[in-house]
Amino acid sequence: MTVGTLVLLRHGESEWNAKNLFTGWVDVDLTAKGEQEARRGGELLKEHGLLPDVVHTSLLRRAIRTNEIALHAADRHWIQVRRSWRLNERHYGALQGKDKKQTLEQYGEEQFMLWRRSYDTPPPPIDDNDEYSQFADPRYAALPPELKPRSECLKDVLERALPYWYDAIVPDLLSGRTVLVTAHGNSLRAIVKHLDQISDEAIAKLNIPTGIPLRYDLDASLRPVTVGGAYLDPEVAKEAAAAVANQGR
Amino acid sequence: MTVGTLVLLRHGESEWNAKNLFTGWVDVDLTAKGEQEARRGGELLKEHGLLPDVVHTSLLRRAIRTNEIALHAADRHWIQVRRSWRLNERHYGALQGKDKKQTLEQYGEEQFMLWRRSYDTPPPPIDDNDEYSQFADPRYAALPPELKPRSECLKDVLERALPYWYDAIVPDLLSGRTVLVTAHGNSLRAIVKHLDQISDEAIAKLNIPTGIPLRYDLDASLRPVTVGGAYLDPEVAKEAAAAVANQGR
Repeated sequence: MTVGTLVLLRHGESEWNAKNLFTGWVDVDLTAKGEQEARRGGELLKEHGLLPDVVHTSLLRRAIRTNEIALHAADRHWIQVRRSWRLNERHYGALQGKDKKQTLEQYGEEQFMLWRRSYDTPPPPIDDNDEYSQFADPRYAALPPELKPRSECLKDVLERALPYWYDAIVPDLLSGRTVLVTAHGNSLRAIVKHLDQISDEAIAKLNIPTGIPLRYDLDASLRPVTVGGAYLDPEVAKEAAAAVANQGR
Repeated sequence: MTVGTLVLLRHGESEWNAKNLFTGWVDVDLTAKGEQEARRGGELLKEHGLLPDVVHTSLLRRAIRTNEIALHAADRHWIQVRRSWRLNERHYGALQGKDKKQTLEQYGEEQFMLWRRSYDTPPPPIDDNDEYSQFADPRYAALPPELKPRSECLKDVLERALPYWYDAIVPDLLSGRTVLVTAHGNSLRAIVKHLDQISDEAIAKLNIPTGIPLRYDLDASLRPVTVGGAYLDPEVAKEAAAAVANQGR
């Protein structure tokens, strides 16, 4: 059986990354730096001859634009694209729109890290009338109210991402394609946790840097040939992951 | 039966439009003016509340980027997108890369207009080794050699576009969606010819302006309620169509 190659790409810096705000499902755009990261991501794909045949994105602008910019840079703008809310960033609940530093000061290190990195503790739910709620957003209109997240922990993200992984991404891999997934810190961490069989505790320490394609070669049972995959620019990836870990400080 | 709304959008000015070169399947980018036209197209969609649920594009960068820019401007960047070579611009054969004015001077008005506007006379075929041939382009790798165009007249475009119209666009319309098709002067003229049942002679005079959404409301048998549809900005459309007709002068 031919098994394709998986490439994960986390979106570049967004306006709210730059402002140090919890973003979640709020649909903010990339910064100029984020656009540059996306372009570099596409150039890395091209330099390594790792050319996607198909791409899956979330429904959020920062992933969609990262994907557009990267694919234009890689001359693969013409490939088929599929999107799903199941690849969206973790819904950050009532923290959406809040300053990370202020939240850290207000609630203390322990609670802050619990919300940021605990596997199964979601932040408090967002009110449907909150200005940063996506309850009435037309892009989720087909989702029944009970399926619309009001807050998510990483466990929730993994549970809602897995159906899309099995139903949409795996068939593309099994058909031997190079499959790009352009998404978010936490939806990609969820996929990596599943692939590398990372424990609920160890996943807390895993950070995925922005804009650097992460390549997974998979065996016939869809297990990684090399645990952790391989970043196309390992040096920069290492530095960038450390920077992500220190957010809010 | 619910029948959806069709919206046609021709890409904005490309680098080769600006240089007055025959483009066809050569994958040139938009100019800054073309990007602005695309943005205005998206703003018109938003102003008119004509919000696409799904979009179909060609495999060419100028249509893909027009589509991306327009959808971001309309806040519909997250809709499903499908692409097909069947929506590509007419393949301009051996004229691809040639200057329109020089071609007019070299071959004379009659031959020039025959290549540009005759329904069933294609330009001379391009050589597979020509620098402007797309014979080896990976995006057409799945097409058997005999299906790869080496030159097309509008009749050829209509014949290769219709299978996609019936198999991909019509089902979206029949499901009641607002369907955007972001494509090219000649692939859109082919669709309009089909919809409005325009004669082989009369289609020569029809020009579709760039960047102005053209709306068709269709009845249950997929015939336009109003022949010719309605441009979202009719005044500008009229001026722009006249400018297109004068290209090469």
